[in-house]
Amino acid sequence: MFESAELGHKIDKKTYDNEVPVLREALLHAQLEFAMAAKFPIVIIVGGVDGAGRGETVNLLNEWMDPRYLQTHGMGTPSDEELDRPMMWRFWRALPPKGRIGIFLGSWYTWPIINRVQGLIKTADLDQSLGRAKRLEKMLVDEGALVLKFWLHLSKDKQHNRLKTLEKNPKTRWRVTKRDWEHYQQYDQYLAVAESVIRHTSTAEAPWTIVEGVDAHYRNLTVGKVILDALQKRLAETKITEVAAPPPLPSIDQLNILSTLNLGLKIDKKTYADELEKYQGKLALLTRNPKFKYITVIAMFEGNDAAGKGGAIRRITGALDARNYNVVPVAAPTEEERAQPYLWRFWRHIPRRGCLTIFDRSWYGRVLVERVEKFCSEADWMRAYSEINDFEAQLVRHNIVIVKFWLSISKEEQLKRFKERETIAFKHFKLTPEDWRNREKWDVYEQAVCDMVDRTSTKIAPWTLVEANDKYYARIKILKTLCEQIEIMLKKKGIKYKPAKLSA
Amino acid sequence: MFESAELGHKIDKKTYDNEVPVLREALLHAQLEFAMAAKFPIVIIVGGVDGAGRGETVNLLNEWMDPRYLQTHGMGTPSDEELDRPMMWRFWRALPPKGRIGIFLGSWYTWPIINRVQGLIKTADLDQSLGRAKRLEKMLVDEGALVLKFWLHLSKDKQHNRLKTLEKNPKTRWRVTKRDWEHYQQYDQYLAVAESVIRHTSTAEAPWTIVEGVDAHYRNLTVGKVILDALQKRLAETKITEVAAPPPLPSIDQLNILSTLNLGLKIDKKTYADELEKYQGKLALLTRNPKFKYITVIAMFEGNDAAGKGGAIRRITGALDARNYNVVPVAAPTEEERAQPYLWRFWRHIPRRGCLTIFDRSWYGRVLVERVEKFCSEADWMRAYSEINDFEAQLVRHNIVIVKFWLSISKEEQLKRFKERETIAFKHFKLTPEDWRNREKWDVYEQAVCDMVDRTSTKIAPWTLVEANDKYYARIKILKTLCEQIEIMLKKKGIKYKPAKLSA
Repeated sequence: MFESAELGHKIDKKTYDNEVPVLREALLHAQLEFAMAAKFPIVIIVGGVDGAGRGETVNLLNEWMDPRYLQTHGMGTPSDEELDRPMMWRFWRALPPKGRIGIFLGSWYTWPIINRVQGLIKTADLDQSLGRAKRLEKMLVDEGALVLKFWLHLSKDKQHNRLKTLEKNPKTRWRVTKRDWEHYQQYDQYLAVAESVIRHTSTAEAPWTIVEGVDAHYRNLTVGKVILDALQKRLAETKITEVAAPPPLPSIDQLNILSTLNLGLKIDKKTYADELEKYQGKLALLTRNPKFKYITVIAMFEGNDAAGKGGAIRRITGALDARNYNVVPVAAPTEEERAQPYLWRFWRHIPRRGCLTIFDRSWYGRVLVERVEKFCSEADWMRAYSEINDFEAQLVRHNIVIVKFWLSISKEEQLKRFKERETIAFKHFKLTPEDWRNREKWDVYEQAVCDMVDRTSTKIAPWTLVEANDKYYARIKILKTLCEQIEIMLKKKGIKYKPAKLSA
Repeated sequence: MFESAELGHKIDKKTYDNEVPVLREALLHAQLEFAMAAKFPIVIIVGGVDGAGRGETVNLLNEWMDPRYLQTHGMGTPSDEELDRPMMWRFWRALPPKGRIGIFLGSWYTWPIINRVQGLIKTADLDQSLGRAKRLEKMLVDEGALVLKFWLHLSKDKQHNRLKTLEKNPKTRWRVTKRDWEHYQQYDQYLAVAESVIRHTSTAEAPWTIVEGVDAHYRNLTVGKVILDALQKRLAETKITEVAAPPPLPSIDQLNILSTLNLGLKIDKKTYADELEKYQGKLALLTRNPKFKYITVIAMFEGNDAAGKGGAIRRITGALDARNYNVVPVAAPTEEERAQPYLWRFWRHIPRRGCLTIFDRSWYGRVLVERVEKFCSEADWMRAYSEINDFEAQLVRHNIVIVKFWLSISKEEQLKRFKERETIAFKHFKLTPEDWRNREKWDVYEQAVCDMVDRTSTKIAPWTLVEANDKYYARIKILKTLCEQIEIMLKKKGIKYKPAKLSA
């Protein structure tokens, strides 16, 4: 795999001096067209062998292009706020919006490779990390991003020479650290792991470009030209063709997961009062368990209009200390959110450890309202199922309890509640013309809900379907389920704050 | 000052049970009107004596109001990302946008009071902290925020009783910590400091409400009613009258600070090449000084259109490692930024220690383009001068080097450059119709620049006026000034990472 990058590629000074001004102007020009149009972001990953010129390459790109529309992220040691969240959070927060270039020196590949070389993780762990990386890149590309990955290569001899040369020159001596020499000792292992990583993650949508790092002229021109070429081609594309499997067919009989719910379930007022006190008390105690500060809880509410999400949420928050929870009402995305991949606006609300966050509506909007109202393309919502499963798997992996509620009411019950809202002045604001319009599409929404549950109710993050015709019954079922899920997590072995096995 | 809060206020259960439902409904109603209109934010500070029911009050407000439009911030120990920035940064990032309520349990008063009681800071330091707090609140109110400050009081005896009662009940025992008893020992000092703080910061725009904390009924009803009253009054206001001093008069002769610049200053190409290498090299070394990681640098560029900001910025970044700098091009505010006070969108870009951030245009937009184009009211830009001075003082206090450049060219030189941009295809995108329109207002802009320099060129953050008719001269002056300012900071005594005297 690295053979072509050990041939001794070289560009003489004269050719370089001739070509660079032309390349720079073209790069700058393409970048500005890209920045002004602001239709997609560019993610550039620069990885490779120590001494192969990663830092120099990145500095050069900053020099050649307009630094105003470019941001470089040297993803070094994570901050405590980053360690308190799933590993990918720090990359999500650094993603460039449309019209900007984000250069990552140190990426989602860095720590998996290093940890594997040092024997801190097994091959299976590495493979899992690479799976996550690939899915992230696939999502980025599907969202329109241009993803370019460079691997700067040096043979073992050349690495040795390079480190020695840098050390000899007083001006560059600072660049060679003890860690560089340690890595040199592990060159063979490092290369073997890197080879495997590149092989597994050179996907059709985001392939690696391996560049020989010995000759700076060759390296610079290659990286610059690859970027220019990809950018120009992308700018020339008029339309991105999306490929998606056809949407799922509705059940061919009348049986679906919602039809199996017994909406007649109810409890009386007295039982409700008793159970409410019991489970609120339990929830209060659970969140004060000393181990609670090592976990995170996300409770997520979806449901028919007027199914009682607000009331259920208030019964949860009523049991909690206001310092430890946060309610995120999901509304239309803001301008900054629209310039990012779909899941970005949910990643930004992922809480630190020890906190409980309630989402009032959620990332499932894409496969519910956006699907039904055609706010996104079929390809967008079809791929959302796996993106969401992947997102939730990352949360669970970080000891986040995620409890997903679908509050289900019958069509008749909804009509009753709408009419009630119409007549009671104080509840009037809750009913909008949109609610009536949604109601007309009852069957289409129901199909979307069934597809959603079929495709995203996973073992690690199952849906809890709540029979909500009776508000008392629904609230108790929700509180009880939440308590149970938190209890299970608190009893899990090994729940404690592990600040830094950076194996994500 | 606390006499009225030691009278033994009490509300009997019957009255309470009668009043609460009415109050809750009115509060919820007002809150929803407020949330839907989204015209201003509400900042609620809850402070007071341990055991006086701060946490209970905040939980109650969360229960009484809709938790979806309310966020509670228990401002405990700062994270490392917060410690790396000026103290107020953590409050700025937590400020509620328009239509939302932010409740702060622990505020900009907490640490100054505690530090003063424990003798860690002097009265003069405390006074300075209070000055900053007052200016922040003044700014918030001027920006339209409703700021409500509650102080929950208990006499020394009552505090003793309260802590004992809580300790006796197994259900509430966890609430009493060792720190609470330590604070009790210091009750007298604590109260003396608190009295002084309340006295100094009960301003017309954001007064404190002192509430006796003994009887929960009384406490809850009082806090609820004060909030309801303030919110209802505010919602009923049709228009906020702004009071501002008249704008500064233009100089009555032809002499102003810009007219004193010698725009004929220039250097030849050879000198430029030598000096460029010299100062870029110097800048590179300075940013690699081990002490650099304890400081932060902000370089800010304003200037006439076509004065050469972009070129100057590239000469700085060319000397730096891409991992350590960031360029922030300031454009029109986004939706999320418009829902916040003016300076919020600059606070969010304040870098961590060890980083250099370049602002291409800046917070001075308010007193330049926004003033001239009447994008904001006269009162808004008139108060901006002191808000900006205050903002910069906070940065400097945190060892941030702030270097402000005004790039000045003559009207003739600008015309020449505009024409050049028109004819050179590659530069064409740089010239917009807006540039020509701005040019017509040359004199008005000049007046705004002179006022800006007069009012914001301070000893701690002076303006550097750059004669920019000659690009070579300008770039060298900029690089040189930047190097000098960084050198001065690096030589300052006591520059090192002090993680936590939280005296802000």
